[in-house]
Amino acid sequence: MNIAVLGTGVVGRTIATKLVELGHSVRMGSRSADNPKAIEWAASAGENGSHGTFADAAAFGQVVFLCLLGAGTLEALELAEEDNVDDKIIIDITNPLDFSKADFARGIGPTLYISGGGDSLGEQVQRRVPGAHVVKALNTVTANIMVNPGMLSGHHHLFICGNNAEAKSQVSGWLREWFGWESILDIGDITGARATEGQMLLWLKLWGALGTPNFNLQVVR
Amino acid sequence: MNIAVLGTGVVGRTIATKLVELGHSVRMGSRSADNPKAIEWAASAGENGSHGTFADAAAFGQVVFLCLLGAGTLEALELAEEDNVDDKIIIDITNPLDFSKADFARGIGPTLYISGGGDSLGEQVQRRVPGAHVVKALNTVTANIMVNPGMLSGHHHLFICGNNAEAKSQVSGWLREWFGWESILDIGDITGARATEGQMLLWLKLWGALGTPNFNLQVVR
Repeated sequence: MNIAVLGTGVVGRTIATKLVELGHSVRMGSRSADNPKAIEWAASAGENGSHGTFADAAAFGQVVFLCLLGAGTLEALELAEEDNVDDKIIIDITNPLDFSKADFARGIGPTLYISGGGDSLGEQVQRRVPGAHVVKALNTVTANIMVNPGMLSGHHHLFICGNNAEAKSQVSGWLREWFGWESILDIGDITGARATEGQMLLWLKLWGALGTPNFNLQVVR
Repeated sequence: MNIAVLGTGVVGRTIATKLVELGHSVRMGSRSADNPKAIEWAASAGENGSHGTFADAAAFGQVVFLCLLGAGTLEALELAEEDNVDDKIIIDITNPLDFSKADFARGIGPTLYISGGGDSLGEQVQRRVPGAHVVKALNTVTANIMVNPGMLSGHHHLFICGNNAEAKSQVSGWLREWFGWESILDIGDITGARATEGQMLLWLKLWGALGTPNFNLQVVR
């Protein structure tokens, strides 16, 4: 499958590399066509890896992964151009983190610039490209676990949400087939992004308490 | 032990009833000395149950449970009077939920009126009574599970936080001894309340998805 990965950070490179390993053709998109990190990634990825602008990548992909910093997400979508994602599934991994007051040396993490349960970045993404089918997923775990959930020692859940049931079903199948996600819990429409983005606050505290980002949550009934 | 339970709702009554069953003397506090729900509870609780104003209860308790609606919490503390909780442990179970725009029939839950990671109700409580030792705990599970975590079928975690390590250790011991909490995860100082209060958003979505409030989370590594 032809897949777009928008974003050149750790999440984007981890997802893109895994997808190339699986035999997919991946185009990494960034703001400019000559982004050094995208060029480096494409060179290392071999013949199934390519790079380009956000619009190049979005046009190329049959499905689009959003692996962007929260603050840059809506602008990146604008640059990707709405027509290029029309009727496509967007897997939105972004979180609305505000790092402006974070001070990791003093134990102060980022805050959320959208929160409280009245809106979310996932909803803003869906509103910006209403013709696309946005599925919020993977944004509650660290990059290594996104593509290798089996690295943890027990049963654990991935929370997904979105307005289109068929798109969620399709994404669940891909996440299982590509990455090995066995337990995917659909928490409803895209307003569920308010909850999974809000998870970042607990995630950051747990990282501090556990001393590792390699963890996830299991829902116990 | 003499224990204060501030609040007459489901959480307050559940906690108070369990503590009386365990042989503790519990005074339920409310805004007025003649609150019908507090009177009814005390009558049903037998000789170890009593009721009074927030100040009566706070003065009585060697430890104080806050089982209040978020919006009424700081005023209740004001009425409880700072001197009555000085150097005491406060177990804060409150959540800053705003129900003003909730419409459960349409699937719209409450929002959080403090959120985003810059402050929390737990911190506001600690700032309001700086001489008390506030431990945020139990606010991430439904009342039945607070006092009976063993009702769930697997291993699961309670997240607690607070500024005073000794108070957290004491509270952990009580929660184990009184209610049966076996896995308590200390996520740090009282700023952890930003995370556990923020959990409400996921908790509400999971309630919707699972069709029951009887669940909790296990951290899997």
